Amino acid sequence: MVKGVETLSEHQLIKEYFSDIGSGFLDKRNISVSVGDDAAVLVSPTGKDTVISVDTSIEGVHFLKSMHASDIAYRAVSIALSDLAACGALPAWFTLALSLNQLDTKWLSDFKIGLEDISNELKIPLIGGDTTKGNISITVQVGGYVDRGNALTRSGAKVGDSIYVTGCIGEASSELDNLREEVSETPPYEISSNSNRYTRPKIRYGVATKLVGIASSAIDISDGLFQDLKHISKSSKVGAKVFLDKIPTFLNKDLSLKDFNRGDDYEILFTSSPLNKNKIIKISKDEDIIISEIGVIEKGNEVEIISSKGNSLEVSSGYQHF
Amino acid sequence: MVKGVETLSEHQLIKEYFSDIGSGFLDKRNISVSVGDDAAVLVSPTGKDTVISVDTSIEGVHFLKSMHASDIAYRAVSIALSDLAACGALPAWFTLALSLNQLDTKWLSDFKIGLEDISNELKIPLIGGDTTKGNISITVQVGGYVDRGNALTRSGAKVGDSIYVTGCIGEASSELDNLREEVSETPPYEISSNSNRYTRPKIRYGVATKLVGIASSAIDISDGLFQDLKHISKSSKVGAKVFLDKIPTFLNKDLSLKDFNRGDDYEILFTSSPLNKNKIIKISKDEDIIISEIGVIEKGNEVEIISSKGNSLEVSSGYQHF
Repeated sequence: MVKGVETLSEHQLIKEYFSDIGSGFLDKRNISVSVGDDAAVLVSPTGKDTVISVDTSIEGVHFLKSMHASDIAYRAVSIALSDLAACGALPAWFTLALSLNQLDTKWLSDFKIGLEDISNELKIPLIGGDTTKGNISITVQVGGYVDRGNALTRSGAKVGDSIYVTGCIGEASSELDNLREEVSETPPYEISSNSNRYTRPKIRYGVATKLVGIASSAIDISDGLFQDLKHISKSSKVGAKVFLDKIPTFLNKDLSLKDFNRGDDYEILFTSSPLNKNKIIKISKDEDIIISEIGVIEKGNEVEIISSKGNSLEVSSGYQHF
Repeated sequence: MVKGVETLSEHQLIKEYFSDIGSGFLDKRNISVSVGDDAAVLVSPTGKDTVISVDTSIEGVHFLKSMHASDIAYRAVSIALSDLAACGALPAWFTLALSLNQLDTKWLSDFKIGLEDISNELKIPLIGGDTTKGNISITVQVGGYVDRGNALTRSGAKVGDSIYVTGCIGEASSELDNLREEVSETPPYEISSNSNRYTRPKIRYGVATKLVGIASSAIDISDGLFQDLKHISKSSKVGAKVFLDKIPTFLNKDLSLKDFNRGDDYEILFTSSPLNKNKIIKISKDEDIIISEIGVIEKGNEVEIISSKGNSLEVSSGYQHF
């Protein structure tokens, strides 16, 4: 399926950098044909639905040029996988459509490391892709499986449901600020810490897959907590009330409303009946991930933010794509 | 699954141009969740394998800026689908990752027409995607189904098999030449003829799906007849001999070896036992598509081209991606 392999350099490009990422997981993931043919062939598990998503990462928009190429690769695959988590699906494979202006072997070697890191972490093979000459652009398609008919969607929130969020909000965007400042002081292309929420977002699979049958709706936070909650509100045809001082953050500074809505968190925002509270506490403990109850689903169609003083606050927009 | 829909313009972008392409085919194709959620959910048919492929189209490389936006869309989806045909799979859905520098509503409206054309032709819905700001780049992921274990691959060619090709070679690249010449004389952005093999490549599904169980190997011709035959040769660990005067072309000019190897044909190149000759003639008649026997699979690992005088000719490379 990876195409464009005629000249030695192209052939080498595919062979050296993309042909064996996670190939040890092909059998486990029931992939019968992978990189090297026209298309990939998947044997879907019985009783499961296939869940797919696609995300494009562009330099200067979704990652910084100064980031280590392994982080760029890791982040590009990770944020695509985040959409599967929001559906409660377990990831099984990914494809990569990569545009590059030039073939920089050092950069490609580093990029490969990031692909291998995320592939090994989730035991998912790279099963195909396309390489083209053009401005750098990374489009990752991911696929996974969920029990038939049980995918979590944005549209199931009910009036009276509690609103929950995993992890801490605002960490990723704060780390992005640090990254931007560091660039001018330290040499670029330094590999980042594996715990950096911006460069190496860890997707909450453990939690997400256990939420199937428990969450009434779910979404991953990519564009901003309030903005993404609006998507649940709209799809579920309900309103939502969020208490600002219940939103979890580790950051040692006063956060404004805007700080919570900058996006890039890749945490799971979900709703669930109050009856499931103990189950959610157990999932949080079992997975060792903070899950915070931050609000409640109400009648209506507005997302309302309540300050610590009980005032209703106006929300600015989250991340704007255009 | 289509993301980035906060502002009115983005919301309108998705709603107006991408939310309902082929939505009438969602049930037929067993898509339970589509555009508007985090990911798409597919219910795979029993007894089938899923076949997926991805292709990126870049301006100036895979399409001309002067092409009508509807042709750009049609071609981008069509060439992605070509890989499924090479596997004998029937297409079921597609996703679109689109990068644009600006939102030109006229261009987007035209682009939508091309998406609708190909969607209606093959009865496949657009089930998700991503829109990003960046230099124009169109990545299309396609999925389809084939009877379990029966996908055609590049690796099954056997010594003694005949080599066949659908349609006529060199038409698309010749039409690309015309297109390049026309631009300077006529206003750009004219919609092309629906029979233009470059702007509106028709994928040979009727033939391809009937080749399952008959072809021993198959590939779609994107980079050039001889170059793509080399992929079969390499994957199947066999040699191949092709007779130049057996290669079909409608073009009213003497074609050089190079003309046959320019790519963009999106015809199906396949191998099959001589015992299947009558079956292949029947498929050709039933589908009203020329299928020509152009050579034979031999021992070895070389692709040899024989001139009308019986000489062995040297082959230059086909399309180079980098």
